Parts: sequence; structure tokens; C-alpha cells
Amino acid sequence: MIYQIIIPQFSKMLGNLLTIFDRAAMHAETKKFELEVLLHARLAPDQFDLIRQVQVACDTAKLGAARLADKEQDAPSHPDTEQSLAEIRMRIQSVITYLGTFSEADFAHAAERRITQPRWKGKSLSGQEFLLQHVVPNFYFHVTTAYAILRHNGVEVGKKDYLGELPYKE
Amino acid sequence: MIYQIIIPQFSKMLGNLLTIFDRAAMHAETKKFELEVLLHARLAPDQFDLIRQVQVACDTAKLGAARLADKEQDAPSHPDTEQSLAEIRMRIQSVITYLGTFSEADFAHAAERRITQPRWKGKSLSGQEFLLQHVVPNFYFHVTTAYAILRHNGVEVGKKDYLGELPYKE
Repeated sequence: MIYQIIIPQFSKMLGNLLTIFDRAAMHAETKKFELEVLLHARLAPDQFDLIRQVQVACDTAKLGAARLADKEQDAPSHPDTEQSLAEIRMRIQSVITYLGTFSEADFAHAAERRITQPRWKGKSLSGQEFLLQHVVPNFYFHVTTAYAILRHNGVEVGKKDYLGELPYKE
Repeated sequence: MIYQIIIPQFSKMLGNLLTIFDRAAMHAETKKFELEVLLHARLAPDQFDLIRQVQVACDTAKLGAARLADKEQDAPSHPDTEQSLAEIRMRIQSVITYLGTFSEADFAHAAERRITQPRWKGKSLSGQEFLLQHVVPNFYFHVTTAYAILRHNGVEVGKKDYLGELPYKE
């Protein structure tokens, strides 16, 4: 299930973000304002702006998968230099492509693996704790905040755009 | 892992919401405005207000667990009548208590169970699809939006309040 949580589902949510950014671009064009205004919008003066929310969502997915699979050395580098919608789209697409390189077998020992990161100063979480209490809530936090910034600025997006298609059976 | 995703982790996030509401109450008291202003705040005119975001987060957790465990008949009824912080706290606490009644064994067959709800008009998802593509993204969406509404209105909350304590080992 770790694979299902972090690979297909996070890829899907990142793809939904691409659709949401299409709506943002349409909105800016219709209302005749520079899209960059939205890219630097935020909900509070001391909160990350939209570009940074997307960068953190991307890193949470990329590094979450890389650390759980013990493949952090192979993760692509993203120096957080995006300034335009085209660059944001490339960043998201790059992470979707990277997530697509993992297989279920990569996560066979992920739940029990001890996971750490530099800012934790030597402390660690089990893979399952890291996934369920850190990666998942952080990922959805930044995706939802990106959505909320656009929603607050009048972009016509709804819950369906956030959730994407569901595989209903008749 | 289904139990871990929806019972301890959702309970923890709902508990974090209680802490975040304490901050909201402090903020209203310090700034000398009625807390009800925050309870009815929203990020866009056609978006749910704060009370409704919390009601939906609560229902997503309650009904998610109930449907996955095939115990929907036993779920407590919550008629969405909350108007005050005290009532919102009781709603959240009631769902935390209800989640606490589940055991791992309740979800033994959850991944394969066909799940439906009235608005899907006879269509269904597997339990795993329902959990990963519907319940989890919806739950974090409404918790994060509640947080974002308060953050946007100047309440001093940070990512740590949203995430809660992490079980780091030295």
C-alpha cells in the first residue's frame, strides 16, 4: 500500500495541480492581469507564496519516495529557481516522471526503514511514521494551500479539480 | 495500514484542530472581536465557511472509517447544527471518541470491500480506492482549508500545529 499511497496517488494529485494551473492561466488572461501576480500570491504575509507551495509539495513527494525506497542519491536536483508558469509546469512534470520510475518492490522494506533528514539532527522516524505522519499530511497541506491561494484569488476551481477522476465502477 | 491511516492519524489531526481553535479563541480575545467572525470566515464567497470545513472534515473521518469497516449503521449522527466554538469542539471530540472504538481487525477486509454512498447513484469504489483517492485527500483538504482560513485571518498558527508531535527516536 505504501507504493499506492505515494506513487500513483501523489502523481495523480500533481497532475491535478497542472489542470488547476491551466485554470489560473485562463483566469489571468480573461481578467487581463499578469499571471506572475498569482504565482507570488499568498494567504498571509508570512506564509510561502504559490510558487513555493508547489515547490514544497514537489519536494515532499520526491524526497518522500526517495527516502522510503532508500534511493535519495538518485533523486533529481531541483534548485527552486522557478519563476514562470512554464517552469512550474516543468518542475511538476519532472517529479511525476521521477515518481514513475518506482516499482512496488522499491518499497518492500519501507515501513520498517529508519528515516532521517538533515534538519532532524540525528533523530529518526520509522518509514511508516514518516509516510503517514509527515509525508502525507505535508503533501496534501501544500497542494491544498496552492489550491486555496488560487481559489481565494477568484480562479474557478472546485473540489473535483483537486480530487481528479475517481475510478468508479457501475 | 488502513487502520493506521484512518484511526490514529486522523484522530491526531482532529486533536491538532482543537489546538488550532484554541489559538483562534486567544486571537479573538486579544484583538477583542467576536470569535463567531472567524467561525463564519471563508477564503472565497462561494466556499464553505470555517464551521462547515470542520463539519466536513469530521464527517469524512467518521464515514470513511464507518464505511471501510462496514459499520455505517453504528456511526453517531451529527446534524451540522454547530454555531459556537464549544459546539465545534464537542463535534470534533465526538468523532475522536468514535474513531477510538475501531480496532485493526475492523479493517481486515476493507481494501477489497465495494464502497458506495448515496450521491454516487449506485457506482462504487474498492475500499483501497475510496481510502486513498477520496477519504485521505478530502480529509486533509478540509483540515488544511480550516487552518488556511484562520492563518489568513491572522491567527498565529504554524505548520507544527497542523502536523502535531512526531514520534522521533534519538
